[in-house]
Amino acid sequence: MARALELARAAAAAGEVPVGAVIVDGATGRELAAAHNRVETDHDPTAHAELLVIRAAAARARSPRLSGCDLYVTLEPCPMCAQAIAFARLRRVYFGAYDPKGGGVDHGPRIFAQPTCHHRPEVYGGIEEQAAAILLREFFAGRRG
Amino acid sequence: MARALELARAAAAAGEVPVGAVIVDGATGRELAAAHNRVETDHDPTAHAELLVIRAAAARARSPRLSGCDLYVTLEPCPMCAQAIAFARLRRVYFGAYDPKGGGVDHGPRIFAQPTCHHRPEVYGGIEEQAAAILLREFFAGRRG
Repeated sequence: MARALELARAAAAAGEVPVGAVIVDGATGRELAAAHNRVETDHDPTAHAELLVIRAAAARARSPRLSGCDLYVTLEPCPMCAQAIAFARLRRVYFGAYDPKGGGVDHGPRIFAQPTCHHRPEVYGGIEEQAAAILLREFFAGRRG
Repeated sequence: MARALELARAAAAAGEVPVGAVIVDGATGRELAAAHNRVETDHDPTAHAELLVIRAAAARARSPRLSGCDLYVTLEPCPMCAQAIAFARLRRVYFGAYDPKGGGVDHGPRIFAQPTCHHRPEVYGGIEEQAAAILLREFFAGRRG
């Protein structure tokens, strides 16, 4: 999660919403992909950190399925990313700050709890929550200032 | 929708779930992007037709927001794609077959009806429904055979 927070800081420095994500091989802990949010830079509304690492790790694995891999992300995934996590069959999701306004795991549509969701990762929320939340708060306070 | 169905047929020929999508400028009707599902070909669990056209149209527009653009897709969008449609601020969504098992618009989490969803496109379902459904049925029957 320290690595994901570092990426979130880099996102903020690039003018992007500070969210960072890393995918690791669950067995070895080896990092397979790392990214931060790049929506504005890439002109891509889908370029959330989670989608970018899933795409990169799947390309590297030469498979759309990442069973046995774990995701670390500094913010609760939105519904788009949560569904992508289910499609990718990730084993575990560790996330930082909870997101009552935009989250899709513990809030909103609670994607993994839907009867139509065919893969449910283990989810651990609130990991280094404070550090992730402070980054987001400072970023949005700066934008309003 | 005829163009989207054509793309869905091309997807089936490539061994991909037959779903095609097109984004047009709502004012002029000009096609901005077209794609079919490429999950297996690209080793990318997020490579649904809708996500691919949204990314392509946004890259072309050099903006993550596609206000005033309309999406035609042969199948009801899944929750991942529905949320991406909301992020992209698409004006209208025309879809073909309803998808009770995997859809996220009229089924499952009904993304656009969530209080946390900040943009709701106009949605028209069941457009050329039969043609889209037959394509999907034949594809899955062929895979089981």
